[in-house]
Amino acid sequence: MGIFQRFARLPLKSTYIWSLCPQYSTDLTAVDRALILIQHRYVHSRGLGASPANPGAAPPRLPFSRVTQEVLAFFRTLLPGRTITDPDLLKSSNVDWLKTVEGNSEVLLRPKTTEEVSQILRHCSERNLAVCPQGGNTGLVGGSVPVFDEIILSTSLMNQVITFDNISGILTCQAGCVLENLSNYLEERDFIMPLDLGAKGSCHIGGNVSTNAGGLRLLRYGSLRGTVLGLEVVLADGRILKCLATLRKDNTGYDLKQLFIGSEGTLGVITAVSILCPRKPKAVNVAFLGCSSFQQLLETFQYCRGMLGEILSAFEFLDASCMSLLEKHLKLTNPITESPFYIVIETAGSNATHDEEKLHQFLEEVMTSSLVTDGTVATEATKIKALWSLRERVTEALTHEGYTYKYDISLPVEKIYDLVQDMRGHLGDMAKNVVGYGHVGDGNLHLNITSPSKDPALLAAIEPYVYEWTSEWKGSISAEHGLGLKKRNYIYYSKPSEAVALMGSIKAMLDPKGILNPYKTLPDNIH
Amino acid sequence: MGIFQRFARLPLKSTYIWSLCPQYSTDLTAVDRALILIQHRYVHSRGLGASPANPGAAPPRLPFSRVTQEVLAFFRTLLPGRTITDPDLLKSSNVDWLKTVEGNSEVLLRPKTTEEVSQILRHCSERNLAVCPQGGNTGLVGGSVPVFDEIILSTSLMNQVITFDNISGILTCQAGCVLENLSNYLEERDFIMPLDLGAKGSCHIGGNVSTNAGGLRLLRYGSLRGTVLGLEVVLADGRILKCLATLRKDNTGYDLKQLFIGSEGTLGVITAVSILCPRKPKAVNVAFLGCSSFQQLLETFQYCRGMLGEILSAFEFLDASCMSLLEKHLKLTNPITESPFYIVIETAGSNATHDEEKLHQFLEEVMTSSLVTDGTVATEATKIKALWSLRERVTEALTHEGYTYKYDISLPVEKIYDLVQDMRGHLGDMAKNVVGYGHVGDGNLHLNITSPSKDPALLAAIEPYVYEWTSEWKGSISAEHGLGLKKRNYIYYSKPSEAVALMGSIKAMLDPKGILNPYKTLPDNIH
Repeated sequence: MGIFQRFARLPLKSTYIWSLCPQYSTDLTAVDRALILIQHRYVHSRGLGASPANPGAAPPRLPFSRVTQEVLAFFRTLLPGRTITDPDLLKSSNVDWLKTVEGNSEVLLRPKTTEEVSQILRHCSERNLAVCPQGGNTGLVGGSVPVFDEIILSTSLMNQVITFDNISGILTCQAGCVLENLSNYLEERDFIMPLDLGAKGSCHIGGNVSTNAGGLRLLRYGSLRGTVLGLEVVLADGRILKCLATLRKDNTGYDLKQLFIGSEGTLGVITAVSILCPRKPKAVNVAFLGCSSFQQLLETFQYCRGMLGEILSAFEFLDASCMSLLEKHLKLTNPITESPFYIVIETAGSNATHDEEKLHQFLEEVMTSSLVTDGTVATEATKIKALWSLRERVTEALTHEGYTYKYDISLPVEKIYDLVQDMRGHLGDMAKNVVGYGHVGDGNLHLNITSPSKDPALLAAIEPYVYEWTSEWKGSISAEHGLGLKKRNYIYYSKPSEAVALMGSIKAMLDPKGILNPYKTLPDNIH
Repeated sequence: MGIFQRFARLPLKSTYIWSLCPQYSTDLTAVDRALILIQHRYVHSRGLGASPANPGAAPPRLPFSRVTQEVLAFFRTLLPGRTITDPDLLKSSNVDWLKTVEGNSEVLLRPKTTEEVSQILRHCSERNLAVCPQGGNTGLVGGSVPVFDEIILSTSLMNQVITFDNISGILTCQAGCVLENLSNYLEERDFIMPLDLGAKGSCHIGGNVSTNAGGLRLLRYGSLRGTVLGLEVVLADGRILKCLATLRKDNTGYDLKQLFIGSEGTLGVITAVSILCPRKPKAVNVAFLGCSSFQQLLETFQYCRGMLGEILSAFEFLDASCMSLLEKHLKLTNPITESPFYIVIETAGSNATHDEEKLHQFLEEVMTSSLVTDGTVATEATKIKALWSLRERVTEALTHEGYTYKYDISLPVEKIYDLVQDMRGHLGDMAKNVVGYGHVGDGNLHLNITSPSKDPALLAAIEPYVYEWTSEWKGSISAEHGLGLKKRNYIYYSKPSEAVALMGSIKAMLDPKGILNPYKTLPDNIH
């Protein structure tokens, strides 16, 4: 649907909305303004129960072909026993982990090789069949499940390590390797993966790369844009792009792999990954600390960066509301006295004595200056795991609360908890819980708002308020979760219209029929 | 000129060449084979003195418009006093630092603002005028100078720091800031730039980003693809792309800035950069060591990574031939006993005592085991600088030797010196010097071959031999220098034809008239 068609459906009365995105307000074109207006009006009309007016809801189905018996016969010949059409078996692949988005795909394909992926996509491209690439299906924005009847292309059987070089630490593997399996594989060889996240037991490395996953180690080892050295990608028409280099440096032409990192399967299907892995640290320590205010938490962070320096590998936080949910739903025990804020600090280094000395000096400093009210330190693996689970299992605890509205926001670090407090005031009794946790070291807040069940009135009070707030502070409305289905139409809060238009041109160039993961990442008005 | 036109000009006798790129030999199409053949035949015919047959030489001038008096009048009104047409003043901008490529541009523009760059490019685009963006003009592959009469667009007056946030360490500045000036600015504020290179006194940050510069700190802080957080770019038609985010994480749509990192000004002109800067380390140590074989050097590297771990910030090497040139031409003094190989190790950390202890333990280990034959350590700034200059000034020493053929190769680290030795055997007395130095930690060799003056026979003996050797070991024919004019036609040694074709599509999408830095980066056959 073109923007003018959409535009025509709405009476254009409100103009106040134009001042809501201050960072772009000075250079908005009339079309931008209209688009923002449309989005906002959609939000406002949601209260009336009009589902298509919800910017996160599915747009109308695009005119892709339907899967026929002939198509199924082709897949069954290509992938015998790996072309799944049993509705019971399809069920878990049709719905996202949070159970917020559900498609009705009738076929799930499980290729084992890049060549098979190529043949699948060539067939789909020729017949105008839409495809939803799926890894571990652990995404939080409805990016990994079909919206309608898209064919699900699962990487679950593409789970082989191809090579590992224990001099350079470069791992090359198929896209469907589960992150935790790769971690275990590497740890036996004295290396670690440069990323770690709560979903590691299910998520696939191909999905991690497709969504540019952040996680718990980004502070130390940087983003996947630096650590991924090569990719093999199958394009929409079945062409295979072999850029699976295993070199730390390669400036020969444009770095095409970057197009596929973080584009959520909309530009190509990643089939293999080369990634630079750090040595396994000889010593790891985890401290779990309590702070009585967010300001003290920030001051603790500044001390921490100065005193722990190069051994700091994570600085995470959760608030007291998160701790209550962990205790209530998962029966986890708070190891320290109750505090408004909790910090998880991890150090990873090459000399245990030095690391403990640095950590000791740091803790003495922050305890003496009363920045930290209580704390405990673990150096032994099971205790480290127990402390980490207090941070990693917050997402799981939240799922027991009913319905969760999830926001993944980047902001200047000193602003991140202001948003939580502001939102509590703004929502009052409407929300059951408003909780904040996340990656302080990266300026990345996970803001979660719960209610007993889906609540359109609550949603209307949260959005676009939360996005306006973020935009005002020049933040990102999706720090690491991506846009997927749910957040695609909010992109203009973090990107100017020229940039979004260019994204549309790239999509049109690489996937002219739009068959790859349709309805995701890019806003409806440029599809 | 289309590939088939070029193809038609050459008799197709030789087929032996198809086995020369083993990594792609199994999946080469007929067109690929033809292209490789053309390139090789060009190389071979160079011996006959046919300059257009040299793949590194300029192709025929493309049919861009000429600069007219009307165009000059427009620029003089837009940039009064900053539209340079005096041939004497233009001279240094028309020739590269190595004096190997010389253009004959008649106008040099020195904008101060992004808006001015936008107006320049809009004017050039409308009139089909070619533009060569230029930073500090320190590139080594002829990428930063005009090939014919392209208008030179210099960033030299775009040299303002825009903001620096001393909590997050995020610097935002104009593209023409000199790297060393930024380093000094940051050091006063207790931070450092995440990159450092020999050319720091002249090179501009915009040029660094455009060429995805590597340099001396990549081992520690990673590549610019991870540390650059935002870019402002003017597109070929004058549109301004404002993606100058100052966030560590932002997964809202495709990461467009990556297109402009390392594309050598062929897709857009970078006008401003946001970059994440590390804290200034509290302690820095530099060790200068001697090894009697490259094998021992590699073993030293393995010990070093294990024992220095997170404080290791550089592991560089030079061979005895480099040392001779430093002594001969720059009168530098070798601080240790003569050795076949020299290593520069830098540590940077937050605790001087811990760092010295780690370094001491490491040195004891490698001296005791006779991996290292002699060494010296500096902790004081001027001594550190003196030791570093032995590594950083090799490039300068080489310029005194006559003509230098420069190669910047990525290889598996255990192979990097084999190429130098192999090349010495291969060239025999033809070369005056064959020297190797570079970044061991990144698997990046700088192979330099000197002769008293330009020598086509020597060049024909080096190329394509050096590229074939690199391709055979799945290396990169340009690790950090880029392709520019000189290496554009060798891209197929490191990238498959599907990838190069896609690069061509991206170029056509962003710069349909091809006015931005023509004749650079992409091979002639897809221009």
